[in-house]
Amino acid sequence: MTTTYNQIAGQSVERLAALSDGIFAVAMTLLVLDLHVPAVESIHTEHDLWRALVLLSPQLVMYLMTFMTLGIFWLGQQTQLNHLVGSHRSLAWLHIGFLFAVSIMPFLTRLLAEYPTYRLALIAYWLNIVVLGGMLYLSWVCALDLGLVKPELSPAASTAIKRRIVTAQALYTGAVLLCVVSTTASIAVIVLIQISYVFGLDFSRRATNPPPATPRQ
Amino acid sequence: MTTTYNQIAGQSVERLAALSDGIFAVAMTLLVLDLHVPAVESIHTEHDLWRALVLLSPQLVMYLMTFMTLGIFWLGQQTQLNHLVGSHRSLAWLHIGFLFAVSIMPFLTRLLAEYPTYRLALIAYWLNIVVLGGMLYLSWVCALDLGLVKPELSPAASTAIKRRIVTAQALYTGAVLLCVVSTTASIAVIVLIQISYVFGLDFSRRATNPPPATPRQ
Amino acid sequence: MTTTYNQIAGQSVERLAALSDGIFAVAMTLLVLDLHVPAVESIHTEHDLWRALVLLSPQLVMYLMTFMTLGIFWLGQQTQLNHLVGSHRSLAWLHIGFLFAVSIMPFLTRLLAEYPTYRLALIAYWLNIVVLGGMLYLSWVCALDLGLVKPELSPAASTAIKRRIVTAQALYTGAVLLCVVSTTASIAVIVLIQISYVFGLDFSRRATNPPPATPRQ
Amino acid sequence: MTTTYNQIAGQSVERLAALSDGIFAVAMTLLVLDLHVPAVESIHTEHDLWRALVLLSPQLVMYLMTFMTLGIFWLGQQTQLNHLVGSHRSLAWLHIGFLFAVSIMPFLTRLLAEYPTYRLALIAYWLNIVVLGGMLYLSWVCALDLGLVKPELSPAASTAIKRRIVTAQALYTGAVLLCVVSTTASIAVIVLIQISYVFGLDFSRRATNPPPATPRQ
Repeated sequence: MTTTYNQIAGQSVERLAALSDGIFAVAMTLLVLDLHVPAVESIHTEHDLWRALVLLSPQLVMYLMTFMTLGIFWLGQQTQLNHLVGSHRSLAWLHIGFLFAVSIMPFLTRLLAEYPTYRLALIAYWLNIVVLGGMLYLSWVCALDLGLVKPELSPAASTAIKRRIVTAQALYTGAVLLCVVSTTASIAVIVLIQISYVFGLDFSRRATNPPPATPRQ
Repeated sequence: MTTTYNQIAGQSVERLAALSDGIFAVAMTLLVLDLHVPAVESIHTEHDLWRALVLLSPQLVMYLMTFMTLGIFWLGQQTQLNHLVGSHRSLAWLHIGFLFAVSIMPFLTRLLAEYPTYRLALIAYWLNIVVLGGMLYLSWVCALDLGLVKPELSPAASTAIKRRIVTAQALYTGAVLLCVVSTTASIAVIVLIQISYVFGLDFSRRATNPPPATPRQ
Repeated sequence: MTTTYNQIAGQSVERLAALSDGIFAVAMTLLVLDLHVPAVESIHTEHDLWRALVLLSPQLVMYLMTFMTLGIFWLGQQTQLNHLVGSHRSLAWLHIGFLFAVSIMPFLTRLLAEYPTYRLALIAYWLNIVVLGGMLYLSWVCALDLGLVKPELSPAASTAIKRRIVTAQALYTGAVLLCVVSTTASIAVIVLIQISYVFGLDFSRRATNPPPATPRQ
Repeated sequence: MTTTYNQIAGQSVERLAALSDGIFAVAMTLLVLDLHVPAVESIHTEHDLWRALVLLSPQLVMYLMTFMTLGIFWLGQQTQLNHLVGSHRSLAWLHIGFLFAVSIMPFLTRLLAEYPTYRLALIAYWLNIVVLGGMLYLSWVCALDLGLVKPELSPAASTAIKRRIVTAQALYTGAVLLCVVSTTASIAVIVLIQISYVFGLDFSRRATNPPPATPRQ
């Protein structure tokens, strides 16, 4: 029986997590590199600077939107990786594909910030979100198929992971369809969807171990 | 009883720490990318180069100031995360908001470096510090509320974490109020506040385990 | 018996892995920074934007190719590091040399994207791949020589690691030789080689511990 | 007895290591961003491209020099952190100062690459190396003073760490003094010093646990 390279390659979840954190960190930080400081020649008063910064604000909103998108997918990927007992090179490649889509986000955000009224820019942005969601979905199916998911994770939780991806993608697709009316409406709805995901705070769940003996302050 | 996605998402403190370290590392390093080497055409002697570097020095001071600010907040966040038994998606989102403010620091630093005499640039910089402090404060309250803080941390220490944030914010606000007189005075006082935090060296506290049997050299 | 610095330096595999993940993450993300958004002045209709994006597509293919290359070498390095019991400063320096070649990939990719019909650009790109493969090969030989490889790794697996590098290098060299006919042919074959490595999915191997008791969904 | 913030802040060696790896990774990768691809307008033949790349080679040498410098200091810092039982906010700040000098290296390298014959550029580069070495030296003294060094580290090893820094700094200073004759000579000697540190391979030391039962291949 021969040992093949593929049998021993890419088995570290920790390394995959570390590469992912690095790529997310760079992609999230580079976004703001595109915010250019107003040129000194055109600014002579506080009021000029104020107006220049106001003109930057749509860009800032776009970057905030992408920051939230990346935050959502970072949490989604983390949730999967937290529940794996190990990795596998097939799974690693699915995640590398996912990370390629992450690394392209700054470009697509710049595109949308420059062309907020162009459907093509919006559709390119949305297609990338479809790739992100699709890769995460495939990763989870692959992990289940390879028996890499922690046995203590309930089937209900496993289903919840898949359902979440499908629901989110359906919502984003609905938002993008609005672009037949107006791309601005699409962008506004996407931001609303993301804010609702971010603020889906549920304080009902308490950490189960160890519960604090007394209320802390 | 159904399992929801929110019950299993974002529970890794390690991943949150790794993403944070990545974003801080990129933000801190990108700062210095804005230091442009003097153009070759304008430099003909050692003296020309010296003058060109002297002209860069205010920018360098501004970057050093932001590097210290980011260092202070990195330590502040680390201190919180070191004392958690686990994370939660609500807590993760508070930290992602904190990291957004971190990622914006290079832009606001550039703005202040270009417009050191404009109150608006100073106020924008300060507002971001308020967001950083506020997010850290909320994170700690949220972690206490969710029972995620290690039980061995004394209530006094927990209070010290909150008091530190409030004190620092009060000092920064005082410094910014000076801008009615002069923005330069504000910047100078902010730098002094930060230096005093950095050099708040207390050699009184010795690491408790293991104490060195004999002096080492 | 004196203790020398070299006896205690560079022994952490974890730090080496973390630096590597950071450099790979930055190199992989910076690639896409070179994709410039079409200039606003030249775009007046959706059709203009479409054509501008189509013109960008060869660059995107080149970046995808490099992303795959870096993914392949990241997996290759990870596979080695996963099987080490410790590091050593000699080994660390071989990996730092490897990382230098990684950090140069964005430059060489830009060069090839700008000059896709120039043999020199292709040969420079390929030489860097030779350095990447050579450094990995030397690292493995060095780790074996220093007794740093986990004893449970079978000699067959160790041989598989070396064989994989030699095979891949032979294939890349064959592809580059095609440039006497056409550099485009070379690039196409390199992409095909990489895709075949990426999709070398083998679902035959199941994770051995713990096997899932029942199929999950 | 009150608990102060300083008593509980900055105690994680892992976080310090992770931030350091991130900053080193970004600094090392950004270096190569400054290598600009020759402008398309000026290149019409393979020969033109060859000449343009040859013109880039001094820059490449400078970047390789800095990559080695950063590699040397990364190993030096790692060696210290590997031997700590914990951190402390004073120690953390010394390392943050060290990291500031790391983050400035790309700027100083660009400066030296643009002005290789200017003593000022060389002295600025060297002063930064002095800061890097000095911060590392202080860090080690501080760690010893705070009792944070692992007790199993022999005093001889501890001395070796300090001696190494002093020796290296003496050599660099000697090299820089050569600039009264020629800055090129200084740069050449610095590169030689670094190469000798990199290739200070000592295969005499074998990993002590676990020794391989049989020679591996």
